[in-house]
Amino acid sequence: MQLLEDRIRKDGIVKEGDVLKVDSFLNHQMDVSLFEAMGREWKRLFDGCGVNKILTIEASGIGMACIAAQSFHCPVVFAKKTETKNIAGEVYRTQVRSYTHGRIYDVIVSKDYLGPGDRLLLIDDFLANGAALSGLLDLAMLAGATVVGAGIAIEKAYQPGGELIRSRGVRVESLARIKSMSEDGDIEFC
Amino acid sequence: MQLLEDRIRKDGIVKEGDVLKVDSFLNHQMDVSLFEAMGREWKRLFDGCGVNKILTIEASGIGMACIAAQSFHCPVVFAKKTETKNIAGEVYRTQVRSYTHGRIYDVIVSKDYLGPGDRLLLIDDFLANGAALSGLLDLAMLAGATVVGAGIAIEKAYQPGGELIRSRGVRVESLARIKSMSEDGDIEFC
Repeated sequence: MQLLEDRIRKDGIVKEGDVLKVDSFLNHQMDVSLFEAMGREWKRLFDGCGVNKILTIEASGIGMACIAAQSFHCPVVFAKKTETKNIAGEVYRTQVRSYTHGRIYDVIVSKDYLGPGDRLLLIDDFLANGAALSGLLDLAMLAGATVVGAGIAIEKAYQPGGELIRSRGVRVESLARIKSMSEDGDIEFC
Repeated sequence: MQLLEDRIRKDGIVKEGDVLKVDSFLNHQMDVSLFEAMGREWKRLFDGCGVNKILTIEASGIGMACIAAQSFHCPVVFAKKTETKNIAGEVYRTQVRSYTHGRIYDVIVSKDYLGPGDRLLLIDDFLANGAALSGLLDLAMLAGATVVGAGIAIEKAYQPGGELIRSRGVRVESLARIKSMSEDGDIEFC
């Protein structure tokens, strides 16, 4: 998606440790007009697939998922990283390793909001190692839901996550696929 | 706001321990068409106040903040509950007690995205003890930003948060103000 690639080139910052900082527009400060364009693009890509729910994971995926849901006319469910008292009853549960935070999270979704009748679009901001997206797939599988595909904002295509998820038979549509990047600011897209 | 009160009466569940469970439409599964109506209402209430940025806190506030931002044509910044490696440089930092999780969080915002030129609308899903909203006020004050007001989805008006925040001189607009609720499901609004 040209608009997103241009924005990454303009405002993304490559930091040491293979970090692409896009927090001026994507995952700390959020440009909702960009999210609207991204939502329309995912809708174009997954149109006619019968998506009835979007599943994402807190926190960075929530904003873009909600705005994408406007195009799909469906609700959003976000998986929570820790159990809270407010989720009563039964939950689906899996574990996700966060490379950013260097720890493993329990990730849960209430059984009330995912089930065999659901046709899910998974949404997240980044796909690198594939840990978060694998966790969402686990939750969908536990619920017996159908995964129509995954809409990703930025895929680090040189990391194993994309291949891992696609090898599980999931259609992944990443709006920007990074082939390589270097700390002098050079970002090459696929 | 009648639409939100009706929805709370219809789908909200009162649980023991003064918990109002609205996670079927507000803060786990999210009804984005309801968020659109809420965003338009906050826009009506704060129209002409020069809001140039919405500040919220992860995770439950993010969805409604992003959709409200479409009405205000401004970006959203969300305060993060733990420091991540991806936030380089300087941050504003305060602490927030979570009564839901029974712990105290560090809450941070990058100094790059809040400053003296900002006129902020604070958005959050609940106002009860006022802890989260006080944290957002602290961050705004540290940044030297102007707080135009706070847009809250549900205020438990019988708890001290609303009075606490209003006594700090902040205009608080809560779309549903609960006067009392009981475990037999009776919810009374102000």
